This record gives sequence, structure tokens and C-alpha cells, in this order.
Amino acid sequence: MKKKTTIYDIAKELNITVSTVSRALSGFPAISDATKKAVIETAKKLNYSPNRLASALKSGKTHIIGVIVPSVQAHFFASIIHSIEEGLKDSGYRIILYQSNESVENEINGVRTLLEAQVDGIMASLSLETQDVSHFAEIVKQNKPLVLFDRVNPALKVPTVTLDDFGAGYLATQHLIDQGYKKIAFITTIHQIKIFNDRLKGYKAALEANNLPVLEENIVYGGLSIKDGRFGAGKLLRGADKPDAIIAGDDFTALGVIKKLKEVDETPPEIGVIGFANEAFSAYITPNLSTIDQHANQMGSECAKMFLKMIAQQNPYQNIDHVVLNPTVVERQSTTKLPS
Amino acid sequence: MKKKTTIYDIAKELNITVSTVSRALSGFPAISDATKKAVIETAKKLNYSPNRLASALKSGKTHIIGVIVPSVQAHFFASIIHSIEEGLKDSGYRIILYQSNESVENEINGVRTLLEAQVDGIMASLSLETQDVSHFAEIVKQNKPLVLFDRVNPALKVPTVTLDDFGAGYLATQHLIDQGYKKIAFITTIHQIKIFNDRLKGYKAALEANNLPVLEENIVYGGLSIKDGRFGAGKLLRGADKPDAIIAGDDFTALGVIKKLKEVDETPPEIGVIGFANEAFSAYITPNLSTIDQHANQMGSECAKMFLKMIAQQNPYQNIDHVVLNPTVVERQSTTKLPS
Repeated sequence: MKKKTTIYDIAKELNITVSTVSRALSGFPAISDATKKAVIETAKKLNYSPNRLASALKSGKTHIIGVIVPSVQAHFFASIIHSIEEGLKDSGYRIILYQSNESVENEINGVRTLLEAQVDGIMASLSLETQDVSHFAEIVKQNKPLVLFDRVNPALKVPTVTLDDFGAGYLATQHLIDQGYKKIAFITTIHQIKIFNDRLKGYKAALEANNLPVLEENIVYGGLSIKDGRFGAGKLLRGADKPDAIIAGDDFTALGVIKKLKEVDETPPEIGVIGFANEAFSAYITPNLSTIDQHANQMGSECAKMFLKMIAQQNPYQNIDHVVLNPTVVERQSTTKLPS
Repeated sequence: MKKKTTIYDIAKELNITVSTVSRALSGFPAISDATKKAVIETAKKLNYSPNRLASALKSGKTHIIGVIVPSVQAHFFASIIHSIEEGLKDSGYRIILYQSNESVENEINGVRTLLEAQVDGIMASLSLETQDVSHFAEIVKQNKPLVLFDRVNPALKVPTVTLDDFGAGYLATQHLIDQGYKKIAFITTIHQIKIFNDRLKGYKAALEANNLPVLEENIVYGGLSIKDGRFGAGKLLRGADKPDAIIAGDDFTALGVIKKLKEVDETPPEIGVIGFANEAFSAYITPNLSTIDQHANQMGSECAKMFLKMIAQQNPYQNIDHVVLNPTVVERQSTTKLPS
């Protein structure tokens, strides 16, 4: 395989520093036109990535997009970021990241910081604390693209990429019913944000559609973590009418549920367990975990596509698209009910 | 529990927008002194976090630190970032992230982007491609703190936080020898960067210290991933002298090794397997995985501590500290050799 041309090769050829090459390719004003010309010609000669070259020839833009997420430690958001970058790879755009850590104050600082850093646009998923979204208005005012994903707020008239969360809750519940489970509990979060409410609505709708009762004692509100899963499962097992299946708000919570069930010798699929997010570990635990795939990769690539469409238009808000992704069930051992 | 005072409360009390409160607290020049004074007094009255208040009273700084990592998708780096933020929490500093995606060109752009965004300092872990590190010199020249972590380069005379990688390789090997394994193979990466070379040196040193032969056919060079682990294990099993234990370059690679070994009915600990990084899933797979803990959390908190020390000094490079963390073995089923 022929080695890919890097800016080191261009720098060596011209006997200038890599930093100068990089600045020249980014159209940095401090670099002389003669140097820019020499760098671009050498880059062409050495077959340097033509897409990067194309973006260098444009000007007046930083080619940097700011992305605000609650936390990169959540595999779901890290995967979205990865696929946003994949989707932007050939466009010359790069991203810088800001974590809100679920604080609206951090989020406000993030918007300001990114705008001060002269980003060409912003993609964001809201913090759990965010109610008022007026801090995002400045982006729209500057005529820069703003794309919201996963956790959105309809008060902002901007394009969005979301999952059908009602459908996700419905699907998880219907899957368990199809497997023969009848008393289905749900461990969810106390945070009253739209996506979790929608999933709970989907759960209730599926029970009703199958003539199963919706019992408030079967819904546990807490956090989402291994610890919360153990706690929630413990609480449900102590209840008067023990459930035969548990939906957990995410795969980490589901893992906690499984650990608890194993301890009391009710190892799934004896009691069925399904999570959300299809985390990397879910396929490898014992029993391996059924889960709802939220299609993080598709979400990221749709965000990138939407941004590139918006940035190409005079008015990025000419059309305001809303992409809604369909969840799917990943069926594994934890919900494969044994014949009784 | 009393609800924590947020900037919403301050805004409501003064009948101004949250954005104005946030700007006032960050010492933003466009906000009048009268407003700043009112916000600060109200913040004090409502017991708003005194640390955030303290940082608002300083000036001439953005209180933003840039952090450059290869990828946030690696749990190891996400954990470091999380603990950097934990360590900075009470200081009023916030971070923005930049991913190099293992490209030196991205890394150069990252340094420039972050400096243009007026960060107060930078923390970075180098890309696999980085040889020349001159793009970091500008940070030092601006008298701003630069801390390198995990993947460092001694050509930069700056503080570092690293793992004892030689020790990590030695420890993994010695652990397997102590468990009774004698023919120990190593699946590592083809990238010739210091940390992987050091681990391999530690492996060889441990074999020699125990009078075991160092066999080149027992070292597989490839990538680090589930797929690479399967491939590497397959290659080792087909060899003339099949190993009785395998060290994998990270836990994902170890997972691939385990999958392959299960398929050919040599389920660990029959053949011992140990990884690196103590990923979240490692405790939950079957058999659960022994691994070398690289102490990501400690690495992040040491970075934060070092930065705060540097920023408090007139000359951040007055003393140049090098913190080296000790790896530890997390012993689980995959290396608990059964009595033969």
C-alpha cells in the first residue's frame, strides 16, 4: 500500500515547517500568497487529499463545527460524535466538543465559548436541566446552522434528528409480550424530559393494546446506572405482584438488573430483561442482553448530512427538516423465554 | 435536600435573562459594572456556588482549557476527561475537547483552533502519527500551561502524567507466570510508539527474569480491536508451539481472543488471557477478564492538579513535574488457572 501524503511530506518538499503548511492549507491570513500558492501546488503534485485541498481553497470560514453533548462518557454520544466526524470527513470540516455535564449553565457557556471560537455552526443535544433554550437563539441570529439531535426542544425552530422514542418504548414492551411475558415492569429516570416520557407512553400504550393492566407499582423512577438497576430490581422483586419481565432505561441499568436477578436465582430469561442503547458490552455478558438499538451511527451521519445541506444554502433555515429514526430490537438470550 | 441555586434563580430575582447573568458571572466586558455588581450581590445572597463566584471575580482569563485526545470513543480517554472535569469542578475552569483521530494534521489544527479560542492552557495526549511536536511550542511560548498525559514526547519540556508502561507489561507477564502459565504470547499494535514498546520490553524482561524464552513467533503485531484479537489468537493457535496464555494489548482485543478460544473449546482459563485498561465490560463477560488497570481516573485528576498548580504561578514552567502512575493487576477468572 502506498503511504498517504501527509503535510510532513509537503513541508519537507518545500523546506518549510508543518505549521506553515497547515496554516497555508487552511487559508490563514498571516501566510503570504506566494507561500500559499507553493503549498497548494506541491500538495497537488504529491496527491495530497483533494477534499482537504478543496476546503483550503475556500475562505472566510474556520471549517470548525461545535458539538455540545451531555457527556462523551456515554457510549451513545461518543458513537454519535464518531459518526458525525465520519460524515464530515470528506468535507474539510472538523469538530470541537463541549460537554454540558447535564448543567444548563455549562450549556450556555458552551454556546458562547463555541461562538467566540468562530465555529461555522453548532450541533447540540440538550442537558437534562435545560428548559429555557434562548441561549441557542444567537446561533440562528448569526445565520449559522444549528442542528439539534436526540434531546431536542420544539421551541427552537431548527432542524432535528431524533429517535422515535414512543416507538422505542412500545417496541421493547411488545417484544416482551411476544415472548410470552405478561407482567412487565419499567425502570426509568426521574428526569421529566421528553424522550423518557415518550418511552413510558409507548410502554403504556403497548400494554393497553394487548389488554394488559398498567400498574403504577411496576414503574420505578430513579437514575440510570448499574446501581440503579440493582436497586430497581430489588424493589420490584419485593413487591406484592412480582413482575416476570423488566425493561431498563439503558443497558447499564439492565446490567444491574441482571446482577440482582442472578443473586436471587431468577437469572434471565426466567425473568426477561431488555435495555436501551445496544452498548458495546451487551453482546458479551451472560446471559447476553436484548436491547433497543437507538442507531447512534445513523443519528450522527444524519446530523452531518443536514449540516452540510444547511451550510451550502444562503439561508440555512430555508427548509427545516426533522429526521426521525426508527428503533429496532436486538434480540438476545435475556428475553428468549424458555418454554414452561 | 435544598435545591442548589442556579443562574435561573439569579435571573428571576433580578428580572434579567440567564444569558446576562452568565455573562456577568464570567466577567464579560459587554456587561455594565452596575449589572455585574447586582448579579454578584444577588449570587452571594442566594448562596450561589462560591467557587464559581470566585472565578468570576478574576479577569483576563477565559477559564477554558483545551483538551486534545486521540478519540473520546475510547473509554480510557473518556474516563480521563471525566476525572479532569471532576478535578477542575471547584476551580471555575471548564474544558473544550478536540479529537485528533490519530492524525498529526488534526492535532496541529487542534492546537491552533484552541489557541484561537483563547483557552488558558492545553492538556494533550499525542496521536499515533505524531513524531515532530513543534506545533505544541506556541502554547509554551504564550506562557500558557501545557500538560501531556499518557502518550507523551520527551522532546517537549513540559509536565507529564503517564503510566509506568514497562511495569504494566512486566506485571501482566509476571501475573501469568505466577498462575502457572509458561508459554506466554503477546498481541500488540504495529504502531511503534513509546507506550507499546515499553510494554513489550516489560514483557520480555519478565520472561527473562523467570528464565523463560523470548520467542518472536509468540508476538503478534496488528491493530487493537475485537477483530484483531480473534485474528491474533487464530494465528497463535496455528503456530508450531501453541501458547498457554495470551496477553492482549487492550480489553477489546482480549475479548476477541476469548471469543476465538471459546470457539475452539480452549475457553480461558484453560488458555490464560489478560488485557489492558479495565474497560467497563471486562467484569461482566464470561469468563470475566483479568486486566491491567491503567488508572484513568487518577491520571485525569493528576492532570487537573498539575494544571491548577501551573496556572497559579507567574511562570507555569517554574518546576517541571513528571508523575508516573503504577499499574495494578485486576485478577479475574480468565487467568485463574485450574489445577492440572
